[in-house]
Amino acid sequence: MISIERDILSKNDAFAAENRARLRAEGVFALNFVSSPGSGKTSLLVRTITDLGDRCLIAVIEGDQQTSHDADRIRATGAQAVQINTGKGCHLDAHMVGHALDQLVLGTGGLLFIENVGNLVCPAAFDLGEAHKVVVLSVTEGEDKPLKYPGMFAAADLMLLNKSDLLPHLEFDMSACMAAALRANPHIQILTVSAKTGEGLPAFYAWIEARASLMPAPAGDPA
Amino acid sequence: MISIERDILSKNDAFAAENRARLRAEGVFALNFVSSPGSGKTSLLVRTITDLGDRCLIAVIEGDQQTSHDADRIRATGAQAVQINTGKGCHLDAHMVGHALDQLVLGTGGLLFIENVGNLVCPAAFDLGEAHKVVVLSVTEGEDKPLKYPGMFAAADLMLLNKSDLLPHLEFDMSACMAAALRANPHIQILTVSAKTGEGLPAFYAWIEARASLMPAPAGDPA
Repeated sequence: MISIERDILSKNDAFAAENRARLRAEGVFALNFVSSPGSGKTSLLVRTITDLGDRCLIAVIEGDQQTSHDADRIRATGAQAVQINTGKGCHLDAHMVGHALDQLVLGTGGLLFIENVGNLVCPAAFDLGEAHKVVVLSVTEGEDKPLKYPGMFAAADLMLLNKSDLLPHLEFDMSACMAAALRANPHIQILTVSAKTGEGLPAFYAWIEARASLMPAPAGDPA
Repeated sequence: MISIERDILSKNDAFAAENRARLRAEGVFALNFVSSPGSGKTSLLVRTITDLGDRCLIAVIEGDQQTSHDADRIRATGAQAVQINTGKGCHLDAHMVGHALDQLVLGTGGLLFIENVGNLVCPAAFDLGEAHKVVVLSVTEGEDKPLKYPGMFAAADLMLLNKSDLLPHLEFDMSACMAAALRANPHIQILTVSAKTGEGLPAFYAWIEARASLMPAPAGDPA
């Protein structure tokens, strides 16, 4: 079983490297959003597209076992979306994402958001070719999640603590949660946001902009 | 003038490399705290020593133009402190810190906190041999400081947003401040703390512990 897993992962990594090279050549900055189900990833993406959509072209690849609800919500903003249904699958893989890329038109300066299947375990192991994994944790989930699912927090470069608007109604120990995330990943960056009120989102947008602007110029770009 | 500045900095860098090698050999994890005057660095250190002092040996090097008030406050906690008075100098340099190290007894697992002269400009250029610069910004200072003093925020690996207990009484746009810091340094980590109430400090302690434990073993340590 271990050798089969290694084989699957090495095939995935080869497809991920292809996706990454293609995104880089096209000048597209890609983020892979991972979280438990119901952390608010789609709401966060809808708000982000609404706020940033006049500055750059944004497309979303939606991963769900079933339904196209999430892609429908994204398309209602005017952004392009491709829905991948994984059926029994518990995560997106790089081969699926490569096919979805064929259906999207972005270009230099474009942003690609990949919303993975809601699952704090399996998507951690699968590189999709993204620049960064972003783990979304809602404050309603409790502060111990980074300790219970350390692999995902170790794989992510940014943790968005979402639903901060609910904090006044919860017993949520923000500092303990941040400490837990830092134990799982001493290098993780942490931002507290609310997709509902917009609190904290300018800092998230600055994070995106700073990193997107660090991307190497696409192949053939004289700059 | 430019060549003199280069000469000063290259001499400083040589002393900093000596300090760093010495601290590493002794297994001591060192942080260089930089900020505007009055951001609450000393209060933060007093509280940190009180909270962590039973877990490890902690010493502080205090930099001020005049007075030994800060070292006196540190010694009242029971920790070792060396006061450096820089006179007209606007920052600590690595040569001063090397002399102060001669007066301290730490050892493997020890923590050294260097509290620089309150100044958001000059200390940015001077490596003291620390593992990381930590910039402390109090929320009373306004959210635009990272944009106005980008060099310091670019030089720091962690920003502590201090005095969070005052937030209910201020018009402080937390997200704008974080966005400004991320524009100055896309890799900066940010934690909100209050030295007064202790809010957020467990996350800061987790940050320290995670990084101190990443230190290479001291020379001669069989582990």
